[in-house]
Amino acid sequence: MALLVQKFGGSSVSDVDAIRRVAQRVVAAHQSGDDVAVVVSAMGDTTDDLLDLATQVSPNGPPERELDMLLTAGERISMALLAMAIQDLGTAARSFTGQQAGMRTDSSHGRARLLDVTPSRVAESLARGEVAIVAGFQGVSDDDDITTLGRGGSDTTAVALAAALNADVCEIYTDVDGLYTADPRIVPTASRVTRITIEETLEMAAHGAKILHLRAVEYARRFSVPLHVRSSFSDQEGTWILVDRPLTGGLHKDGTARHTPDTITTNTITTEDTMEDPLISGIAHDTSLAKITVVGVPDRPGAAAKVIGAVSTAGVSIDMIVQNVSTSPQGLSDISFTLPEVDGAVAVAAVRDLQQELGVEDVLYTSHVGKLSLIGAGLRSNPAVAQRMFVALAEAGINIEMISTSEIRISVITDQDVVEEAVRAVHSAFRLDADSTAVVYGGTGR
Amino acid sequence: MALLVQKFGGSSVSDVDAIRRVAQRVVAAHQSGDDVAVVVSAMGDTTDDLLDLATQVSPNGPPERELDMLLTAGERISMALLAMAIQDLGTAARSFTGQQAGMRTDSSHGRARLLDVTPSRVAESLARGEVAIVAGFQGVSDDDDITTLGRGGSDTTAVALAAALNADVCEIYTDVDGLYTADPRIVPTASRVTRITIEETLEMAAHGAKILHLRAVEYARRFSVPLHVRSSFSDQEGTWILVDRPLTGGLHKDGTARHTPDTITTNTITTEDTMEDPLISGIAHDTSLAKITVVGVPDRPGAAAKVIGAVSTAGVSIDMIVQNVSTSPQGLSDISFTLPEVDGAVAVAAVRDLQQELGVEDVLYTSHVGKLSLIGAGLRSNPAVAQRMFVALAEAGINIEMISTSEIRISVITDQDVVEEAVRAVHSAFRLDADSTAVVYGGTGR
Repeated sequence: MALLVQKFGGSSVSDVDAIRRVAQRVVAAHQSGDDVAVVVSAMGDTTDDLLDLATQVSPNGPPERELDMLLTAGERISMALLAMAIQDLGTAARSFTGQQAGMRTDSSHGRARLLDVTPSRVAESLARGEVAIVAGFQGVSDDDDITTLGRGGSDTTAVALAAALNADVCEIYTDVDGLYTADPRIVPTASRVTRITIEETLEMAAHGAKILHLRAVEYARRFSVPLHVRSSFSDQEGTWILVDRPLTGGLHKDGTARHTPDTITTNTITTEDTMEDPLISGIAHDTSLAKITVVGVPDRPGAAAKVIGAVSTAGVSIDMIVQNVSTSPQGLSDISFTLPEVDGAVAVAAVRDLQQELGVEDVLYTSHVGKLSLIGAGLRSNPAVAQRMFVALAEAGINIEMISTSEIRISVITDQDVVEEAVRAVHSAFRLDADSTAVVYGGTGR
Repeated sequence: MALLVQKFGGSSVSDVDAIRRVAQRVVAAHQSGDDVAVVVSAMGDTTDDLLDLATQVSPNGPPERELDMLLTAGERISMALLAMAIQDLGTAARSFTGQQAGMRTDSSHGRARLLDVTPSRVAESLARGEVAIVAGFQGVSDDDDITTLGRGGSDTTAVALAAALNADVCEIYTDVDGLYTADPRIVPTASRVTRITIEETLEMAAHGAKILHLRAVEYARRFSVPLHVRSSFSDQEGTWILVDRPLTGGLHKDGTARHTPDTITTNTITTEDTMEDPLISGIAHDTSLAKITVVGVPDRPGAAAKVIGAVSTAGVSIDMIVQNVSTSPQGLSDISFTLPEVDGAVAVAAVRDLQQELGVEDVLYTSHVGKLSLIGAGLRSNPAVAQRMFVALAEAGINIEMISTSEIRISVITDQDVVEEAVRAVHSAFRLDADSTAVVYGGTGR
C-alpha cells in the first residue's frame, strides 16, 4: 500500500485510445491497493495548436497573461477526459485545476515559480478513495490570475505534488522506458540505467538529456522525492532515481509501511568489468549552444567579472567558463564561455559595449558548438576516466575546445557537427553498450 | 459615455477571422468613449467537439462534474484569443473566467443556477480603462467546483453581468439582425421588430422563438436590464427590448448621464394602418412538443391535480393545459396538456400508473404537435385579434386542437406538419410582412 504520483505527458494522452490506456493503467494501480494521484499534460499537439491560434490573432505577439489563460485550457481538457475514462471503468476519479490543487505561484506568466503547494483538496479526494487528477503545468498567482510554469512544467507539478503529499514515489511516464547511457537515437546500443542518483540525474538534465526537465529534478532533489522514469507503453520498470534521504511520514491513512527505494527490486546491469570500471551513469549531450571568446582581457582584478557580469545583466545564462591564465608579457588572457545559441546576439552586444572600456582586443563568436558530458560517481577522483575519455575522442579525430569538470561530471565542448560521433566514441570506450538495441517509441517526452 | 455589455455567441467567434472582426467592433465601441465588458461563448463547434470526445472516453455517459470541467475549456480558449486580438489592436484587454468574474452558482453541474454575481475584478478592469472579457456559460460553486449554466448560459451570463455592473444596455450579438415578426426562414417577408417590451419577449422565448434564451430574458426582466439584440455582421441597430424601470446609478466612474432606452433613436415600422391594428409584436412557433390527453377523468376535486402532479413529479415540465368542463351525465372530463416531445415516454408512464387509481378511461399520446403563438400588447382585451387569427387559420384549412391565452399572447396547438403554413397565414393576416426580405445569415444564435 503506497501513495503514488503518476505523471503522463502529452504523448501518453494524445488521443481517446491513449487516454483510455492510461485510465486502465491508473485503475490497475488503484485496484492493487495503492493511492494514486495523477498529473497530466495537454493532449498531444494541443499546446502547439493553441499557440498557433494565438499567433494568428495577435501578429504582434500574444500577451503573456492571456497566453497562460489560453494554454491552460489544454490540461483542463485532458484531465477531465481522463477522469471520465477512469470513472467509466468503475473507479471514482476527480480532476483538479492547478488552482484547485493549491499550486500557488508568483505572477511571472509563462515561467512562474511555485511559491506554495497546498493540495488539501487532492489529499481529501485520495482519502475518499478516489483517483485525484491534477492539471500539470499550471498554477494561480496571489492575484488569482492563471499562470503556467513554462517548459517541463508538468514534471515540476508532479514532483511538487509528490513532495507535498509525501508520496512514496513520483512515476514519470514517457515514451521511452527510462534513462539511457546515451540518447538511443544516436547510440542504438545505449543501455537503460536501472538506478541512478538524483545528483547524476541533475547533471544529465543540466547538460542536455531531455527526458526529465532540469527544474523538476532540482525540485525532486531539494524535497527528496524518489522518481521512477518509465514507459507508458509497457509494464516493465524503467529508471529509479534515488534520493539520499527518502521522505518519511506523510498522509497515509492506514499508517502502513511505505516503499522506499532500498526495498525496490531492480535489475542490475552486469558487465565483465563492473568492479574495475568507474560508475559511469551515462552520457548527455547538447547541441543548442554557442561560444564567445573574449581575446586579450587585461589581467587585472575584476576584468573577468565585468565581462561575465555584463552578459548576466543582459539576461543570458552562461554555461561553461574557461579562462586561460595569462602567460603573455602584456598580462593578457582569453575568456571563453558557452551560452544558449538563441541568446548569442544579445550576449555579443553586451560584451562589445565593454570592449573599449576594458581595452579588450577582440570578441569572437562561434555559433553551433556541441557539448558532451560524461556523468558518474567519483569522476574527479579517478583521473583514468578523463584520460580514457580524451583518448577515445582523440582516436575518433575529435577536437576538444573547452573542458569543465565537477565531482560527478566531465564536459567537453566540440564542434556541433561531430558531437554525435563523439557520443558514440565515448559510449563505446566505456563499454556502456547494451546487448540489445534500446526500445524507442519515437518523439520526445515532455 | 455608456457602460455596455456585449455578448458574442459561438457563431460570432467561429474562427480566427471572426474573432478579429469581433475585436474590431469592440475596439470601435471602446474608442467612441464607452466602457465595454464582453461576454463570449466557445468558438463555433468547440462545445460539440468536446462533447464528442467525452462520449468517446466514457461510453457509459460522462460524469457531470467532469463534463463541466471539460466544456469550460471552450470559453477559456475563445476569451483568451479575443483578449489577444483586442490587445493586438492597441487596446488594453483582460479575460476573466466565470470564477474570476464572481459568478457563484449552486452545485447543479450542467444546469447551475446563479446564486451571487460579484464582478469586482471586472469593475476594476473597466475602471482601469480596459476591455473586460468574461467567459460565458460558466461559474463556480461554493465548493470551488467549476459549473456550467446549461443551454443559453452565455446569454444569462451577459444579462447577469449587465445587472451587476448596472450597465446601460446588454447587447446580444447573433447571426440575425434582431427579433422578427416570425422566423425569417419560414416567413421570408418577416419584418424586424425595432422595439418590444420585455414581457412580450418573454412570451416569444417561452413559446419557441430561439434567438434569446428564456432564462436570460427572465433574468433581464427581473433585474430590469435593457437588451439590444443585433447582428455581429452589420452595424445597423437590431431590436431593443425595453424594460419598465431602467436601471439607475451604477459603476460609472465619471458620473455622466447614461443612455436609457427612451433616449435611443430607433426606426419605427410604419404600415398604413398602424393606428387601427393591435400592437402585434410577432409570431413564435415551436415544433418540439407532444400532447397527452387523459380521457374520462372523474369530475371530482383533486383528480386533475393528481394527473398534473404525477407528470411534474416525473420531472416533465408541462406547457399548455386544457380541461373540458364536464357535461356528460357520468361527470367525466378530458384533460389535455402539451409537453416536450423528448419527455413523452416518461410522462405517459407516469399517467398510466394513475389510470387504475383514478378510474381514467384512456391515455392518448400524440407526438409531433406544433404550437403557434401570437404575441402583442393588449391581446386579451381585443377580441378582434383572436377572431382574425382563427379566421386566417380556418381559411388556410388548419385545424386548431388547443387554445390558451394570456394578456399578451394567444397560442394554438396544431398538427406539427402545418405549423409553418399556419405561421405564414397568421403573419399575412396581420400585415406583418416587410417590404423587403429579411436578412438571415444562416445558423441559429446560441
